[in-house]
Amino acid sequence: MSYFFLDDYKDMEVYIPGEQPKEREYIKLNANESSFPPSPKVLEAISASQINGMSYYSDPHCMELRKAIGSVYHVSAEQVFVGNGADEVLGFCMKSFFKPGMKVCFPDLTYDFYRTYAQTYGLDYEQIPLKEDLSINVEDYVESERDVLLANPNNPTGKAISVDDIERIVAKNPKRMVIIDEAYVDYGIESCIPLVERYSNLVVVQTFSKSRNLAGARIGFAISTRDIIEDMNKIKFTFNPFNMSSMAIAAGVASVKDTEYLKECVAKIIHNRMEFEGHLKHMGFEVIEACTNFILVTHQKVSASYIYEELKKKGVLVRHYPGGKIDNYLRITIGTEQEMDTVTQLIDDIVKFDGHRML
Amino acid sequence: MSYFFLDDYKDMEVYIPGEQPKEREYIKLNANESSFPPSPKVLEAISASQINGMSYYSDPHCMELRKAIGSVYHVSAEQVFVGNGADEVLGFCMKSFFKPGMKVCFPDLTYDFYRTYAQTYGLDYEQIPLKEDLSINVEDYVESERDVLLANPNNPTGKAISVDDIERIVAKNPKRMVIIDEAYVDYGIESCIPLVERYSNLVVVQTFSKSRNLAGARIGFAISTRDIIEDMNKIKFTFNPFNMSSMAIAAGVASVKDTEYLKECVAKIIHNRMEFEGHLKHMGFEVIEACTNFILVTHQKVSASYIYEELKKKGVLVRHYPGGKIDNYLRITIGTEQEMDTVTQLIDDIVKFDGHRML
Repeated sequence: MSYFFLDDYKDMEVYIPGEQPKEREYIKLNANESSFPPSPKVLEAISASQINGMSYYSDPHCMELRKAIGSVYHVSAEQVFVGNGADEVLGFCMKSFFKPGMKVCFPDLTYDFYRTYAQTYGLDYEQIPLKEDLSINVEDYVESERDVLLANPNNPTGKAISVDDIERIVAKNPKRMVIIDEAYVDYGIESCIPLVERYSNLVVVQTFSKSRNLAGARIGFAISTRDIIEDMNKIKFTFNPFNMSSMAIAAGVASVKDTEYLKECVAKIIHNRMEFEGHLKHMGFEVIEACTNFILVTHQKVSASYIYEELKKKGVLVRHYPGGKIDNYLRITIGTEQEMDTVTQLIDDIVKFDGHRML
Repeated sequence: MSYFFLDDYKDMEVYIPGEQPKEREYIKLNANESSFPPSPKVLEAISASQINGMSYYSDPHCMELRKAIGSVYHVSAEQVFVGNGADEVLGFCMKSFFKPGMKVCFPDLTYDFYRTYAQTYGLDYEQIPLKEDLSINVEDYVESERDVLLANPNNPTGKAISVDDIERIVAKNPKRMVIIDEAYVDYGIESCIPLVERYSNLVVVQTFSKSRNLAGARIGFAISTRDIIEDMNKIKFTFNPFNMSSMAIAAGVASVKDTEYLKECVAKIIHNRMEFEGHLKHMGFEVIEACTNFILVTHQKVSASYIYEELKKKGVLVRHYPGGKIDNYLRITIGTEQEMDTVTQLIDDIVKFDGHRML
């Protein structure tokens, strides 16, 4: 730590992203990335002339991308904010609307980064316990006086609440901001974006990192009222006006317009998920019903940490959360058919031959 | 403004980037971009497999790029911070080390964004007047008790101070942070990067947007002590861990390694600048001696605002700063030989035929 680092940060916990070991090639099923390439239109969009044109600044207003997203989600470009991944979008949302001491709530089991934000911004945060079955108790959020931050579907559980439930939370108190992070929405549930036309306290965040297969391009967006988006843009212009590269803008436009390819990839993931769930149940796993590109599972006899370690030795990365409430669960991203066949076979071997490694 | 926007921001001035009109094609000499394309190695680096690999997250530690930059500047990767343009790098520097009420100083005439940062972070800032000849009075900064933020060479004047002068500022008080923004350093002066090995209070910021012809790729970096860089990375990990896209990392690595191409482009710009300066002097301009890819000029008889407007009508954008101390100056970016020939001819016509438009 340098002499200059602000005292405020001295006890700060740093967010630790999923591991990305470099010492060998892995089948990477630990960060909910897509195993499918981006839309072929992205490859076309990042042409030689696009690359050579990078000597000029990108559009700080990112209008082409905001228009393209707006057109797909039936909102105006002025209702769309874009950033370097949903993390940056949430970061700007926090910076615009939250300051130390403000009260916010989110589930005790959700995307870890919410706690990081809450700590960074000095928020008074409540982590509301999930129900026994790892689902969200909607009433907790309807009744809370705090601002609300929910991933829907939730990560790492894969469980979702309905748009009607979200509307109940949003409608209860118009002076409370409700942020819904729909990173995984395309894998099986309805988006709550249409609600932004009727409520002035809802911010919906999505990403290109999952269903659009573009985690490495860093593209995320928020849809809300014109006023909220204008505020976020103001803050962006005081921190980093040219936040998106011209390549990211071009990739985003090409990708968001290709809804056919999105549907095709999502259909494959859902198909592979259902197949994989079937196999896992057959091997003695309990599988939480998920509407995401990952599933959270636990085995009746073999410990999650053991399966995690064995899979890693065999070249497959999945996510294990040691020490907490889901210590005996694994979160496994759904990849290609071939990847899931390999993983199925490996897990089968592990639970068969290591059945003695009881819990 | 939404109900939720923090009161703190209500009087905030938004930074306004140089105009980027879309209604027609311009010769763009108003934002100090390069008219040359990026290194051909960048085109090679952003291959189809690189683009298709974007379904996976980029490296949040950006180690490949930090190593490549470190290797060129003879520092370790742990002394390099990378971000989406120098603006984001400065933003993270501010967020890490500055809080409301802290005292900072910078010239009254410099990169406008410093004032924006100072306002956003609620700093107590002093804008120290330049000398009559628009140069920096080094003693002002040696003697100030405030943290120091200097662009060297300075923008929009194009004037520089020496590494020895910077060392005097840095050495005077080790408890004061000195940030030197070397965006334009490659066009004619020595970098102060070697000083980071001897002082623990110096942060040097550079960009790929100027001499590396990659403004649209959004790549900037800071070089400092390991401790300072570690602090900035901690803050990055609480705001947006995966800040750089895999394309930006690949473009940056390819570009920074190609020092031959950098030298070639810089030599062309310096050549074109000297030619252009000669022509302008011949036409009755005073030209401030610059070591940058732009020059600041004023005409003895024709007003800057008039020349600015006439050039715009004729399809050339240059920068005019209405209302202030350099109201009668124009900042003109140095482009290709062909662009400078066109601009020279246009300016010649304007000052010849409109010589009656006296000041």
